[in-house]
Amino acid sequence: MNIGIIGSQGRMGQELQAWFEAEGHVVSYRKDVEEEILKEVPQCLVDFSKASAIESSIDLAKKFSCPLVIGTTALDKDHWDLIYKAAHSLPVFYSANYSMGIYLFHKMLRSIKDQLSGWSAGMVEIHHQQKKDKPSGTALALKDSIEVPIDVQALRLKGVPGEHTVILTQAGETLRIEHRALSRVVFAQGALQCALWVVGQPPGLYSMDDMMK
Amino acid sequence: MNIGIIGSQGRMGQELQAWFEAEGHVVSYRKDVEEEILKEVPQCLVDFSKASAIESSIDLAKKFSCPLVIGTTALDKDHWDLIYKAAHSLPVFYSANYSMGIYLFHKMLRSIKDQLSGWSAGMVEIHHQQKKDKPSGTALALKDSIEVPIDVQALRLKGVPGEHTVILTQAGETLRIEHRALSRVVFAQGALQCALWVVGQPPGLYSMDDMMK
Amino acid sequence: MNIGIIGSQGRMGQELQAWFEAEGHVVSYRKDVEEEILKEVPQCLVDFSKASAIESSIDLAKKFSCPLVIGTTALDKDHWDLIYKAAHSLPVFYSANYSMGIYLFHKMLRSIKDQLSGWSAGMVEIHHQQKKDKPSGTALALKDSIEVPIDVQALRLKGVPGEHTVILTQAGETLRIEHRALSRVVFAQGALQCALWVVGQPPGLYSMDDMMK
Amino acid sequence: MNIGIIGSQGRMGQELQAWFEAEGHVVSYRKDVEEEILKEVPQCLVDFSKASAIESSIDLAKKFSCPLVIGTTALDKDHWDLIYKAAHSLPVFYSANYSMGIYLFHKMLRSIKDQLSGWSAGMVEIHHQQKKDKPSGTALALKDSIEVPIDVQALRLKGVPGEHTVILTQAGETLRIEHRALSRVVFAQGALQCALWVVGQPPGLYSMDDMMK
Repeated sequence: MNIGIIGSQGRMGQELQAWFEAEGHVVSYRKDVEEEILKEVPQCLVDFSKASAIESSIDLAKKFSCPLVIGTTALDKDHWDLIYKAAHSLPVFYSANYSMGIYLFHKMLRSIKDQLSGWSAGMVEIHHQQKKDKPSGTALALKDSIEVPIDVQALRLKGVPGEHTVILTQAGETLRIEHRALSRVVFAQGALQCALWVVGQPPGLYSMDDMMK
Repeated sequence: MNIGIIGSQGRMGQELQAWFEAEGHVVSYRKDVEEEILKEVPQCLVDFSKASAIESSIDLAKKFSCPLVIGTTALDKDHWDLIYKAAHSLPVFYSANYSMGIYLFHKMLRSIKDQLSGWSAGMVEIHHQQKKDKPSGTALALKDSIEVPIDVQALRLKGVPGEHTVILTQAGETLRIEHRALSRVVFAQGALQCALWVVGQPPGLYSMDDMMK
Repeated sequence: MNIGIIGSQGRMGQELQAWFEAEGHVVSYRKDVEEEILKEVPQCLVDFSKASAIESSIDLAKKFSCPLVIGTTALDKDHWDLIYKAAHSLPVFYSANYSMGIYLFHKMLRSIKDQLSGWSAGMVEIHHQQKKDKPSGTALALKDSIEVPIDVQALRLKGVPGEHTVILTQAGETLRIEHRALSRVVFAQGALQCALWVVGQPPGLYSMDDMMK
Repeated sequence: MNIGIIGSQGRMGQELQAWFEAEGHVVSYRKDVEEEILKEVPQCLVDFSKASAIESSIDLAKKFSCPLVIGTTALDKDHWDLIYKAAHSLPVFYSANYSMGIYLFHKMLRSIKDQLSGWSAGMVEIHHQQKKDKPSGTALALKDSIEVPIDVQALRLKGVPGEHTVILTQAGETLRIEHRALSRVVFAQGALQCALWVVGQPPGLYSMDDMMK
């Protein structure tokens, strides 16, 4: 498949390119602040750049008439309004985190969210020191899956691709769910899986839940 | 409430008595290999003795016309046949583990069990050195909640009331669910909660799932 | 042995009394804001009250001519000056944490503190919601054992007697040291062990290191 | 530097080559069951093949008059006799694990090994399913650092480069040391660091301890 990468010179952009090519796909379009290279029209765009690029990414997807897979976090209401509107005419896939493990993490939290009265909750997330947002978009998304007040603490430590731990406690017992990414490749794997799935879907806003059904 | 304890001289039997009394209930019947003390007819029997006692525990519950809460593990088919039969005439509550955290653990595993293709699974359980069964009944029950081959390893270490950790891995990521009991009190708390609930239920076999609905 | 407890009505004060008595010792003196009960002159005073009580605790130890075991944290320079001075005439034992596990934790950190160039460090400590100081005195003491910048994050969650985790990372690997207290009894055990040891020592300021030599 | 790799077609052999070249060194000699390629005489040989290759690796180092860095595990007494003898005429570096984190792990365990009376110990090691030895050579080496009976349990799970956790418990508390390698690169980094160090040393048998002094 021909795939386009937005944010092609960033850390994730480079991981995406390496993985897509390793899996036999063609990165036929690359876009970043300092480059725009179009070899062939892409069949899907994957955007791991930054929130402020959303509008231009949507315009590109319309121009190429192709689905858009979004992996940027720290989106505000305006960004979401743009995404909701775009989803009327385009297949748009959104996840704050493209690892399957984080998807399972969300599922597990949602499965118990109604039965946590009497429990208290905390979260620790650890990422490398180059990460821009704090707490991570994934931590905020996990927080939304649990619907119990949860104190989120972040550490920024060398070389950690991404760890999220939710700690649930009540008198006499503790329950923890911990996810660790060993490398950013896992996010590229997930993004490719989602890109392959969303191509051919009708317009709409899709999430991991839709794909995993 | 008047409660009877079967296995009253064991570790859990003593915890149960202490907790029930601390919560204002009366232990009006105690039974173990070397004692049988009846002060008043109990409104519920709680059995944390051993598998081989099931038959006599059921007979006692019939004699007292009261529900039976069972916490013994390592039950075989014959024991289960007795339990199923008893549940036609008595409310019988069964759980391999009475902590709420382990209940949530099961729920979480069941919520993802259909989406683990591509993952491998392992479990580590740690208990004090006096524990008789290995692996623990709780480990075996958790294994049943996941339906993926899972290698269970057990450690027996001083002073550990009970730890269970399920480890799920695939290329590039690991996901763990870890439960630790800080003391056996947590099992007594859960057993009391179940005993209070099962009193007044019609005959049948009940589990944590039924109570938590 | 006759032991006196300062802070006798606090959480730790009650744990100390229960443990000392369970081990066959006599709590012959109890002091708190609202009580002062002297049955017999104590052979050792154990102070788990608060920093501001240091001066009066030292006066009491002088009055009883007995050693003083101090477990209060959040001490400032003035408190330490008082302690240093008292140690000229009395045996004084100080630890920010009386569990043997935390002692071993310190030893391990000190054994590697010169070899952490290239590593980054973080700490997470978790305690119950009634804990007054944040971060814990133990976390601050562990920080001192490592001599590398270390970001300390604290969570306050139900029912957690005390957890401290140090996380060391560099490119491609993580190393963690984690201590969990299962109950406050562990601190009472350690305090008793130190009290028994310090009785009979010459005047001076003693730490776990001295006792464990 | 010109470096030779023995076991060049294995998983670690390939990692070593990629890392050495990424760091600007030349892999001037490669040897495996099905290949032997000599471009230039190496200044150091790095052997991550298997125990049975030790004798021929030593012969090669003698032939090239260069130091030998050994990373194979599961060595028996005969292999060690060969290594001790070789160290009379060659600088030989041995470690069961070339990550700095595992080195620090050993240091920490050794720092407390005399103070573990009253504690019990267990270990869990997790590696990918292609790993040949079980338990890992690293687990056995860690076991030697602690001198307390320690029950070692191994899990073989997808995609795990290497995890080792030592669990120490006594009544009321648990202490854990956990190391996780995020990728095999960390072993290649360590092996290169050791190779650079051992070149220029006089004949002798060296370990991480010697280099880190």
